[in-house]
Amino acid sequence: MDIKALEKIALSVRALSIDAIQKANSGHPGLPLGTAELGVMLYGELLRHDPADPAWADRDRFILSAGHGSMLLYSLLHLAGYRDISLEDIKNFRQIGSSAAGHPEYGMAAGIEATSGPLGQGIAMAVGFAAAETMLAARFNTAAHKIVDHYTYVLAGDGCIMEGISAEASSFAGHHGLGKLIMYYDSNKITIDGSTDLAFTEDVAKRYEAYGWQALHGSMYDFEEIARLTAQAKAETGKPSIIILTSIIGKGAPNKQNTADAHGAPLGADEVAATRANLGIPGDFYIAPEAQVYFAAKQSEWKKSREDWQITFNAWSKEHPEKRAEWDQFHSGKAAQAAMPVFNTGDSIATRAAGNKALCAIAAANANLVGGSADLKGPNAVGLPADAGTWTRENRAGRYIYFGIREFAMAAICNGISLHGGFRTLCSTFMVFSDYLRPAMRMSALMRQPVIYVFTHDSIFVGEDGPTHQPIEHLAGLRIMPNLRVLRPADAEETVEAWTMAMEHTTGPVALALSRQNLNVFPKADPDWKHTIRTGAYIARQVEGKPDAVIIATGSEVGTALEAAALADKKISVVSMISKELFESQPAEIRETIVPPDTRVIVCEAGVRSGWERWAKPEDILSIDRFGESGPPAKVAEHLGMTVNALLLTISREKCTIKDVLEQKDL
Amino acid sequence: MDIKALEKIALSVRALSIDAIQKANSGHPGLPLGTAELGVMLYGELLRHDPADPAWADRDRFILSAGHGSMLLYSLLHLAGYRDISLEDIKNFRQIGSSAAGHPEYGMAAGIEATSGPLGQGIAMAVGFAAAETMLAARFNTAAHKIVDHYTYVLAGDGCIMEGISAEASSFAGHHGLGKLIMYYDSNKITIDGSTDLAFTEDVAKRYEAYGWQALHGSMYDFEEIARLTAQAKAETGKPSIIILTSIIGKGAPNKQNTADAHGAPLGADEVAATRANLGIPGDFYIAPEAQVYFAAKQSEWKKSREDWQITFNAWSKEHPEKRAEWDQFHSGKAAQAAMPVFNTGDSIATRAAGNKALCAIAAANANLVGGSADLKGPNAVGLPADAGTWTRENRAGRYIYFGIREFAMAAICNGISLHGGFRTLCSTFMVFSDYLRPAMRMSALMRQPVIYVFTHDSIFVGEDGPTHQPIEHLAGLRIMPNLRVLRPADAEETVEAWTMAMEHTTGPVALALSRQNLNVFPKADPDWKHTIRTGAYIARQVEGKPDAVIIATGSEVGTALEAAALADKKISVVSMISKELFESQPAEIRETIVPPDTRVIVCEAGVRSGWERWAKPEDILSIDRFGESGPPAKVAEHLGMTVNALLLTISREKCTIKDVLEQKDL
Repeated sequence: MDIKALEKIALSVRALSIDAIQKANSGHPGLPLGTAELGVMLYGELLRHDPADPAWADRDRFILSAGHGSMLLYSLLHLAGYRDISLEDIKNFRQIGSSAAGHPEYGMAAGIEATSGPLGQGIAMAVGFAAAETMLAARFNTAAHKIVDHYTYVLAGDGCIMEGISAEASSFAGHHGLGKLIMYYDSNKITIDGSTDLAFTEDVAKRYEAYGWQALHGSMYDFEEIARLTAQAKAETGKPSIIILTSIIGKGAPNKQNTADAHGAPLGADEVAATRANLGIPGDFYIAPEAQVYFAAKQSEWKKSREDWQITFNAWSKEHPEKRAEWDQFHSGKAAQAAMPVFNTGDSIATRAAGNKALCAIAAANANLVGGSADLKGPNAVGLPADAGTWTRENRAGRYIYFGIREFAMAAICNGISLHGGFRTLCSTFMVFSDYLRPAMRMSALMRQPVIYVFTHDSIFVGEDGPTHQPIEHLAGLRIMPNLRVLRPADAEETVEAWTMAMEHTTGPVALALSRQNLNVFPKADPDWKHTIRTGAYIARQVEGKPDAVIIATGSEVGTALEAAALADKKISVVSMISKELFESQPAEIRETIVPPDTRVIVCEAGVRSGWERWAKPEDILSIDRFGESGPPAKVAEHLGMTVNALLLTISREKCTIKDVLEQKDL
Repeated sequence: MDIKALEKIALSVRALSIDAIQKANSGHPGLPLGTAELGVMLYGELLRHDPADPAWADRDRFILSAGHGSMLLYSLLHLAGYRDISLEDIKNFRQIGSSAAGHPEYGMAAGIEATSGPLGQGIAMAVGFAAAETMLAARFNTAAHKIVDHYTYVLAGDGCIMEGISAEASSFAGHHGLGKLIMYYDSNKITIDGSTDLAFTEDVAKRYEAYGWQALHGSMYDFEEIARLTAQAKAETGKPSIIILTSIIGKGAPNKQNTADAHGAPLGADEVAATRANLGIPGDFYIAPEAQVYFAAKQSEWKKSREDWQITFNAWSKEHPEKRAEWDQFHSGKAAQAAMPVFNTGDSIATRAAGNKALCAIAAANANLVGGSADLKGPNAVGLPADAGTWTRENRAGRYIYFGIREFAMAAICNGISLHGGFRTLCSTFMVFSDYLRPAMRMSALMRQPVIYVFTHDSIFVGEDGPTHQPIEHLAGLRIMPNLRVLRPADAEETVEAWTMAMEHTTGPVALALSRQNLNVFPKADPDWKHTIRTGAYIARQVEGKPDAVIIATGSEVGTALEAAALADKKISVVSMISKELFESQPAEIRETIVPPDTRVIVCEAGVRSGWERWAKPEDILSIDRFGESGPPAKVAEHLGMTVNALLLTISREKCTIKDVLEQKDL
């Protein structure tokens, strides 16, 4: 190691960071100043990567969990030669159009492995990356050719360590012995509020040892120590490692370092000048010549490393064409055709159970589908075919993942697996607990990762477990999230289509809302419904001539609507709307073939009304705008007015009895 | 201790639990069977309580964090003599109308201290209870009279310990040295999926020691050991204690105990019979005579204990009438009048900053208002007056709470403080991170606890931090939660009213949505606006005669609407809607005085469209239905079409340019 050169690179990181933040008049200098040495070690010495080919499948991954310190990452990507972060981008830090956004945004520049900023999630995504590496290695490596063999590095700050998700993900990683996961903890003892002594005095090393990690300690400012500790982390192959590096936030800014002032605001012109004087930075956006020389020399070394891998990969491909074909399939992002189950009119089966049959068919055809549940494998009905096996220390090729009772980490780990490449992931819990993982689902949506969320027990028909377990506002809550496709099938046949639609959808996450209770498979009026449903809705019941009203229903309420329509003394057609927002995104000419204009629309859904007023008048919406009740499902439905009778009264506009029952949101 | 009697009570708990669950054909026998001995110790020997006066202010608190084991609690409450849980209720377990709901529901029966079921939250609420005890004790105890001196007990299962919120809350409790918090951990090594070895092998004791807790070990089935360990926990006054009790899930059910089958389904008639035979239970809903004798004898002991306290309390009241008056005020649930700040037209101030002035005024008048932020005291602007002090080990009378970067635990701890009684609580974070605490906010709403949530940085006007930090779907997401009042004031004057409305609202939580950016205080057309705003909306700008259109706007977009209305070539009035759902709950005759019928309505809000279609046609809603961008706020607003110009184009129905910019939810 050329310590002198490394020092100059660290100086350049500091120079670029303070200037970019000052120019943007916005940003977080504390972390890039405080951790420049580690960053330099990573991008200069530790990472096995090649900036000329940022998509190299076997590269080491680095995730900046403390995403507010984005200028650390941008400076290093630029200095190391990643083309997507130009000096121009850095000069336009935090401006629209710059790949150097406020926080690292996946997709804005090759080299950014994950979007980060929401604290703690980077740790859990890194756990996902490390898990994916073991899965891929177990499937594809051979005795002669190790084509998958890389490390996952993550840099976490005090905030990441405090967030509960770090506990969930780290306990999971320790249990699973992810030996190639290395976390650096930037321990600077300062948060936005001031000293960590205000709120955070736990023994982090001991806590991580309790999770089954190796815990190491060192200084952020000793290149050789960082190298030695990282080697020690690599040597421990049975445990993940946390390397606690004592650091100084804002290091180099003479008046602000080691204070909360350095964290999240530009240093200001005076302090920038003082920092330059202190560190010997000669000018604007300074890049030391030694840094350029160093990284120029590195390129050929990195190229060689990648080419060596390519030789191995080619030899492996030649020797194992069937493995290579599978590898290509894994990395194609496309789902293979599956022999989907068939259901028939009159079958009575919960959509979660039908969903399991569909899932198993898809899993049989797609060996790269992995995932599981947060301790609800049976209730969520997400067991995979027996030969899929379980992912454990002993069986890294296993596909079912026992996430434990850790919903939030589960979703973020799935994001990490998905981002790593090679796999489709699913995760599941009761729909009411989608709230527990919502912040990670938002990241799936923002990063457009096609994680499949299986949410069962999707309404008050959960019954006895009561209001803590009955979703009310959750369907509406899922639908409002941009880039998230929500599918609520109405019977087993629709569930099969929903799973197919989910697998076809690769530009964002999908949430499947499935019933706990049995639902009857009903005959569909639209003979072409398997095609039409891809618009988000189709006509389930048709009447002769113009209907007096159209009922739009979703999921289990389609059955309610069909019953009510059959009993009503009016001509009522029924539309099953498997995806409200997908249907709403259709052009009017398509929408109007399904929901005719100038026709009274009635809506029936066992959830809040909000969002449905586009389609019907408030008095024509049968909804539930209060928390649920504990009782047998049918009794709860009666108590809350979500029954065939209630719908008949809505149709006939005899509101009195129902509206008495339907308490409005009480404010 | 009469061990024989305690054994008979445990037998009765098991008998009642299996029968109630069997009769309901629904429920979780595993925990009540597995932890009956601990339950008996708590309700018979350890808790200082009086079933005849369940509201006794200085009672010990017990929270069943593993709420699915509700029959444990109901059996014990009934046996101990709590009148709200009758044998009839137990026989109607999980039926509508029974106070013995599926999970313990706060408010259904005195003696249930908190709603539980969503795992891990009970631990955090217990931390809140224990914190509140220290706060009340510090304020009111005197050298001569210790009127506040009670313990908080919590029973947690594997799920609670695995959930990230337990990490957040426990680290917080350890930091703050909550010595009167005692957690029993029912360590039965079984979860729904099977053995904890599948996913959970961390060293829980070591982890808790790392948090600064005392960790103790024992058997669930040794009364004397439970007593000894609890005494040891009480003896450690500087640390919370975790007592890890090795147990057998479903203990007593000969064929199901120690398996996941015992967890969450009725035993079935055969296994109930086998359990009865195994344990010697003679009949249905069996209560051993020894249990009745034991608890009958206990009543006078408990009564005496409470009366002794009452004597102390009376003496203290006489000696310290001013303290007693404050105590009564603290427990009245009513806010005192405050000298609220005054703002004037033309002032330009962020509503978060105006909110701080209002908060400080309210805090000065209400000494029982406590709370803080998840490490964003400055950015959220929730600092309290200097003399309020900080709640620390050394200053238990302090009122500002540094929660650390632990949003979820923060909210659940506030629920605990609020449930304890005596305090109003507030907590705060960036609005986008309301997702992190959403599951606890739902519990505030379900339990109707008047926790005040301060969410600042309430839109894309956050700017540079980008999409991870810009709320888009969050306002809609808050509004759909039953029992949650959402207030988004439009300027400093409205913010003062919003805080007043928040303090007046005592039947549920309140979410305040406040701006990061400065907003101009505008003149209000409605001279009586401070009264009218309590309907949820008022007319901010009036025109002569019938308006061509009414713009409904909220928060910062009211300023946008006022500007656009002034520039438009049509007659445009503007309604500021501080609370959409409050306004929608008004009778039509009130709503129509503010939003006249048969008038074109335009909506302008920097968030998703969903929910606004009740008021306007899709093309008349200026919304943001995609994730944000990193850039200076004005540039982001321009990029996303949330500007005066965009609104003018909406008004004139020239959609082309705007709709090009406004990408729809891309599916």
